[in-house]
Amino acid sequence: MHDPQSALDYARQQRGEALEDLKEFLRIPSISTLPEHKPDLVRAATWVADALRGLGLKAVEVLPTAGHPVVYGEWLQAKDSAPTVLVYGHYDVQPVDPLNLWKSPPFEPAIRGEDLFARGASDMKGQIVAQLKAMEALVKTAGLPLNLKFMIEGEEEIGSPSLAAFIKQHRSKLSCDFCLNLDSGVLGPDIPSLTTALRGLAYFEIRIQGPAGDLHSGIFGGAVENPANVLARLIAGMHDQAGRVTLPGFYDQVRALTEGDRADLAELPQGDDWWMKQAATKALAGEAGFTATERATSRPTLDVNGLLSGFTGVGSKTVLPAKAMAKVSTRLVPDQRPEQVHESLLEYMRRSAPPTVDWEVDLLAAALPSVIDRSGAEVRTAAVALETVWGKPAVYKREGGTVPVVGMMQEALGIKSLMLGFGLPDDNLHAPNEKFHLPNFYRGIDTLIRFLAALPT
Amino acid sequence: MHDPQSALDYARQQRGEALEDLKEFLRIPSISTLPEHKPDLVRAATWVADALRGLGLKAVEVLPTAGHPVVYGEWLQAKDSAPTVLVYGHYDVQPVDPLNLWKSPPFEPAIRGEDLFARGASDMKGQIVAQLKAMEALVKTAGLPLNLKFMIEGEEEIGSPSLAAFIKQHRSKLSCDFCLNLDSGVLGPDIPSLTTALRGLAYFEIRIQGPAGDLHSGIFGGAVENPANVLARLIAGMHDQAGRVTLPGFYDQVRALTEGDRADLAELPQGDDWWMKQAATKALAGEAGFTATERATSRPTLDVNGLLSGFTGVGSKTVLPAKAMAKVSTRLVPDQRPEQVHESLLEYMRRSAPPTVDWEVDLLAAALPSVIDRSGAEVRTAAVALETVWGKPAVYKREGGTVPVVGMMQEALGIKSLMLGFGLPDDNLHAPNEKFHLPNFYRGIDTLIRFLAALPT
Repeated sequence: MHDPQSALDYARQQRGEALEDLKEFLRIPSISTLPEHKPDLVRAATWVADALRGLGLKAVEVLPTAGHPVVYGEWLQAKDSAPTVLVYGHYDVQPVDPLNLWKSPPFEPAIRGEDLFARGASDMKGQIVAQLKAMEALVKTAGLPLNLKFMIEGEEEIGSPSLAAFIKQHRSKLSCDFCLNLDSGVLGPDIPSLTTALRGLAYFEIRIQGPAGDLHSGIFGGAVENPANVLARLIAGMHDQAGRVTLPGFYDQVRALTEGDRADLAELPQGDDWWMKQAATKALAGEAGFTATERATSRPTLDVNGLLSGFTGVGSKTVLPAKAMAKVSTRLVPDQRPEQVHESLLEYMRRSAPPTVDWEVDLLAAALPSVIDRSGAEVRTAAVALETVWGKPAVYKREGGTVPVVGMMQEALGIKSLMLGFGLPDDNLHAPNEKFHLPNFYRGIDTLIRFLAALPT
Repeated sequence: MHDPQSALDYARQQRGEALEDLKEFLRIPSISTLPEHKPDLVRAATWVADALRGLGLKAVEVLPTAGHPVVYGEWLQAKDSAPTVLVYGHYDVQPVDPLNLWKSPPFEPAIRGEDLFARGASDMKGQIVAQLKAMEALVKTAGLPLNLKFMIEGEEEIGSPSLAAFIKQHRSKLSCDFCLNLDSGVLGPDIPSLTTALRGLAYFEIRIQGPAGDLHSGIFGGAVENPANVLARLIAGMHDQAGRVTLPGFYDQVRALTEGDRADLAELPQGDDWWMKQAATKALAGEAGFTATERATSRPTLDVNGLLSGFTGVGSKTVLPAKAMAKVSTRLVPDQRPEQVHESLLEYMRRSAPPTVDWEVDLLAAALPSVIDRSGAEVRTAAVALETVWGKPAVYKREGGTVPVVGMMQEALGIKSLMLGFGLPDDNLHAPNEKFHLPNFYRGIDTLIRFLAALPT
């Protein structure tokens, strides 16, 4: 284990430069979903590649994909027994609309109080720059005691459509011991935390077709099956009274939470009040027998994401709709798999849809759930680093959301991901006035220095 | 009773003129919902007023309303004991889009085979001209043995928003023995038929509000109530397994069908095949214990007319929606009333909506159901007229749709409406290639002559 003090001192002296570098990166409007920003995606990728070259990484490339390119680079100078860590990040950002709600222009970084406001500040250019600065501090002082590879993509905000193929194509180049995924956060400015689990996703579109065309609901109502009513019945039937999902076999592969898991979750500062405040809702709901934190992070769920049928404008139109559509997604926990849940939904539809309608189900998006073993060396090392920097023990949280790349890495490379990032729940991700809490930026650099220096070699 | 033969002979000689008059009327694009057609509505109203004046009616006026004007005129020259009949019609028409599906321009009447194609041909300029020509034939020959008033509105196709106020304002002017409502049809070209009942309407918008704003379904899914799932449960709960509506008290005021009513309906040439063909559907559905005709015309129903929530575009967006909306309408039968059904729905929502969401219900449209006594003189007279012209007995049908003016007349003036018109189920009402079957146009004129001549004075 390296003594990181000289690197920490270096990083402290370099905080001004780190902030300026981050601002420079944030000025590139790399909105991946908007075709007119394609040149900005290239600029952002080039910015990352240049930064990696500046740190002395080798084989730095901006590799093409079917969409936006992936930046790759490697530092393989450590001794043979040293671990190889693959750093994952993304240089793309979300759109900025509604622009009028921003207090300062989204691509002109502005500091107010202890926060740096800009699109991408927390999600996740700030995390990338923290990692670059941590590496720089070690390289310039005590030395980097392990091997690092970087894979920084440009399509995370549009669902990483090219990444699975990229990983498959570059499997040997990406070989590593584990992935350090910086696209994460902590529970609060004073709550050092590690994410040990993510939920998976199976996202469906269900389409119900009744009569060939829309009908007059006066002339035909009562005698002809109404696909919107059918859809409502089908969706209602997907949960039982206890809030459990009724799709056949849905829970068959669910790994039960251990008493230890539940104790960890119970210790988190995420009571009902916390969830209600975060969600801006007056009441919680969900599966009987579980806490809100368990429901939102560690139990599989089924939610309607969209409904559309018939006439939805102002006023009344007496139409008996020909079609009804629902977007329905399930969040998955280990060891559920999207394709199994797809089959469960199909079986449910075969059993429950009346013969008076036709139906189709499309699987629109899929990602595996993941969980990381708390006793692994990288998790323990990260926990110590967080505790040392924050001066209090790290908590182990689970996230209800999905980071598809984690499942891809697991599937294609057989490697686990350590989620270690420094964003906050109120950083306005994907919303106006995204910010990064600067004390977290600096503590993030320190944490990463301590983590990289302390990984067992 | 007048001998109508001279009038029938006159009408036969005048068929060419009748057709030309109808074409002239059809060339006016009186689309009531499109503001740019406002001058055409005035032209159409003026066309009707001029036609009434040409027939010798008095007090012909184009009376303003908050929307498009109503044409009024009266012929009060019959002896004191003669009945006064108020003729109802509308000079406005539906929009024509999609225009590219029309085989000939919608406002350039074209004859193909035995059909006259134009927007408004069947709904309902053809019916109005048939009535004008029947009156003309009597006036010019045997004489008109009764008093007639005309009330021809210009907003039927947008729900007659100004008519209730108009009727209230002109109550004494509109006094009459019954209303002859020409906005109707027969079951087939060879099936003389009379409509003896219409369903009423109570049309609602239900809005469910969950969290204050849309949430990420990964982060919050499972712990926060999803208003789209709640809406689906609420809609699903509005019917039981037997297809009956579960709103509390919904059936309390429903007048049961008599054995006679059911026998009449069973005699209609409207079997399951007929309904499936009309609806272009492969299967029927509905309340257990009733035939398709009974369900569609004589039983109250509840249908979803529209659904909207969350993300409905292409692809997947993992949103937990803040809101969900449904348009839900009920069709009513005697003696249900819209305001009672409104209260039933509110009570259902109070009992069934979970406390985890807020909800609102708006009543968007309301109309009373109506039924007419088959033994009344005007019904019997119309039946004889139909039988004489068609050479076979008329059938008594019920219509599932709603004609709001019928309820308004009943409420404001205490008068019944006789529905007598000559459209066909396949006339493409509200659709491209609307047509009027010309043999029905001429038989309609003859039927109206016989009816007007034979009404007991």
